[in-house]
Amino acid sequence: MDYRFSDRVSKLKPSAIREIFKYASDPAVISLSAGNPAPDAFPVEAIRKCSEDVLREQPIDALQYSVTEGLPALREDVTAFLKNHCNVATPGDSVLITSGAEQIMDLLSKSVINEGDTVVCEEPSFVGALNSFRSYNAVLKGVPMQEDGMDLAKLEEILKSDSRVKFIYTIPNFQNPMGITTSWEKRQGIYALAKKYNTLILEDNPYGDLRFAGEAIPAIKTLDTEGRVLYSGTFSKTISPGMRVGFAAGGSELIQKMVVCKQGSDVHTNIWSQLVIHRFLRGWDFEKHLKNLQKIYAKKYEVADHALKENAPLLQYHPIQGGLFIWCTLPDSIPMIDYCKKAVLNKVCVVPGNAFLTDENKPCQSFRINYSSPTNEDLARGIAILGKLAAEWPNA
Amino acid sequence: MDYRFSDRVSKLKPSAIREIFKYASDPAVISLSAGNPAPDAFPVEAIRKCSEDVLREQPIDALQYSVTEGLPALREDVTAFLKNHCNVATPGDSVLITSGAEQIMDLLSKSVINEGDTVVCEEPSFVGALNSFRSYNAVLKGVPMQEDGMDLAKLEEILKSDSRVKFIYTIPNFQNPMGITTSWEKRQGIYALAKKYNTLILEDNPYGDLRFAGEAIPAIKTLDTEGRVLYSGTFSKTISPGMRVGFAAGGSELIQKMVVCKQGSDVHTNIWSQLVIHRFLRGWDFEKHLKNLQKIYAKKYEVADHALKENAPLLQYHPIQGGLFIWCTLPDSIPMIDYCKKAVLNKVCVVPGNAFLTDENKPCQSFRINYSSPTNEDLARGIAILGKLAAEWPNA
Repeated sequence: MDYRFSDRVSKLKPSAIREIFKYASDPAVISLSAGNPAPDAFPVEAIRKCSEDVLREQPIDALQYSVTEGLPALREDVTAFLKNHCNVATPGDSVLITSGAEQIMDLLSKSVINEGDTVVCEEPSFVGALNSFRSYNAVLKGVPMQEDGMDLAKLEEILKSDSRVKFIYTIPNFQNPMGITTSWEKRQGIYALAKKYNTLILEDNPYGDLRFAGEAIPAIKTLDTEGRVLYSGTFSKTISPGMRVGFAAGGSELIQKMVVCKQGSDVHTNIWSQLVIHRFLRGWDFEKHLKNLQKIYAKKYEVADHALKENAPLLQYHPIQGGLFIWCTLPDSIPMIDYCKKAVLNKVCVVPGNAFLTDENKPCQSFRINYSSPTNEDLARGIAILGKLAAEWPNA
Repeated sequence: MDYRFSDRVSKLKPSAIREIFKYASDPAVISLSAGNPAPDAFPVEAIRKCSEDVLREQPIDALQYSVTEGLPALREDVTAFLKNHCNVATPGDSVLITSGAEQIMDLLSKSVINEGDTVVCEEPSFVGALNSFRSYNAVLKGVPMQEDGMDLAKLEEILKSDSRVKFIYTIPNFQNPMGITTSWEKRQGIYALAKKYNTLILEDNPYGDLRFAGEAIPAIKTLDTEGRVLYSGTFSKTISPGMRVGFAAGGSELIQKMVVCKQGSDVHTNIWSQLVIHRFLRGWDFEKHLKNLQKIYAKKYEVADHALKENAPLLQYHPIQGGLFIWCTLPDSIPMIDYCKKAVLNKVCVVPGNAFLTDENKPCQSFRINYSSPTNEDLARGIAILGKLAAEWPNA
């Protein structure tokens, strides 16, 4: 039959990017396009043990329906972690366990966005979040990124002129896709502007615990005294993305609306996985585990950094101190999309930078590579192929 | 801060029903208000074994990110099950694995509903689905239920007069909340009307495999030749609701849009649980497991049926052949909401029937009881309390 789709999805159409990804499923292709944690970073043995204990001691709890808010004991773990590890403890806040952090984007959008309302985001930004906002017919307005975070003058310009802004979306640590970390000054600036123009902040922090160099900078959420910041966290990068367990901390009234929306979305998050993560956090040394992860990522980044310097000197990139991504920029003489298409034909898949823009049709000279999921050998070989491709580009 | 919520959620407010549920968390209260499968119906040992095998043989597959469509092997299992067990095999269909069947309500709504579009549903119907449709600002139009399913004349009246109907929502087997099974004649009638007025059908079948008496009736989906029916199934009632794994079968173009929406909702369904269910379906005798479930439910229903006949003769109810729910109707002289409130004060919690109406404020003399989750003792005792309460109602 001829389906009549909603306006929000009928606009979506296959793009040049998806065309590139078609080739990525070829096992001969080195994928530098994923956002996957390093496979050797998963605490497999601990998870096995925790799961055994859960299924032996409380199988019915793990298999039966549970509450939408999330396992109370895991919500307590998260509250304690946010307080002790991140110095986050806004009075009157509560915690919601979600099916990965992506669901936080969805539930916040559902709770606050009327069609045509505005979401302000970093430009470029995480395409999964942008698509979630788009699916509620939000208008996306991008703020250009500088070395230390959003251009605050541009941010204020938008907030001043647009009364329909519902929230500012930011990834302050090792931003996806640029790897940029927002400075403490700019974090304070973003909070002050949100307060001045009375809007919410969605602070997305999936990568904060993957810092392998430099000093940690406090979350914007640490400045929050009134539930203005919805903090989005996840166990996807630190324990397992396959389990789909994230967490949001925000004002109770806001969280309560998100709970109602979640009830109509998936009722609750997989409770077996919640119980396993709870046991892991209580029974294992999570801080030690994080330190181990950071070591793994430091080593992998060393490989990427070395390969970029040695074998791909034409690719400019922003050095990173953590996270999963490196943002590479081509010389103006090389057309980015053509380059990415040719890269995949040469068996290396990267993500064209325009995928991360509020308007995919804007010009873009950059692409994103992921250094965490390929093996060190594939990583070095993939970057060398990218470097060679740039060096040998006709008339470049 | 003062939050500015979206129109869709700002309308939601605490209702009389939620007030009753507050008391239900008291452990001294016998809950006949849940929709939980019987705890002894879970295949705990098999799941333990399957999970051990998954974590030993393919831990990274279980813990890493996966694809939005769902585990390919599980999609094959579902396709085979639908074909062999349900005679469902619409040409050109595909299967999507979801985070429980509730997510199917959400993703279909997101894919086809513009604000103000109409969803036609049975009246009364499953409140979780209705709330999902409401969260996209759909207009709900209810069709009164008869002994053998929807009143088809009323259904046609709505379809004829309203060009904005996007789909008909029906639960043909052991409907929630009434326990009614739609006859084969009416299933054909619903399909013919959907075709005549060119609308979709969402066929929700969470309880079909819990039939303990009578003959199975083919799904509406068996009539489908053109992707007009989106079939919604789940492992929540047959394996485990805590794992949140459901499946949708429908036209590929429609499923593809739902995949795009799911990507922005939760990326993919917990892959560990998908792998465990896949192993269970391949390594264990699923048909035998279903027969065992049916025995458990037959026995529990016998307890409820006997208690209703013996100890609650004032409660009229529709006998059922499967599913989880019994719909009880009070004499006109007993006000239903007052009765339900008094029941909870007497330590028995049921769900007031108006919760399942398109308009909660419409008059209703019925309430829903669940017989599957309480112990046999609690079930009999709870029903006896309900019977006594009706018998002793002042001036009843």
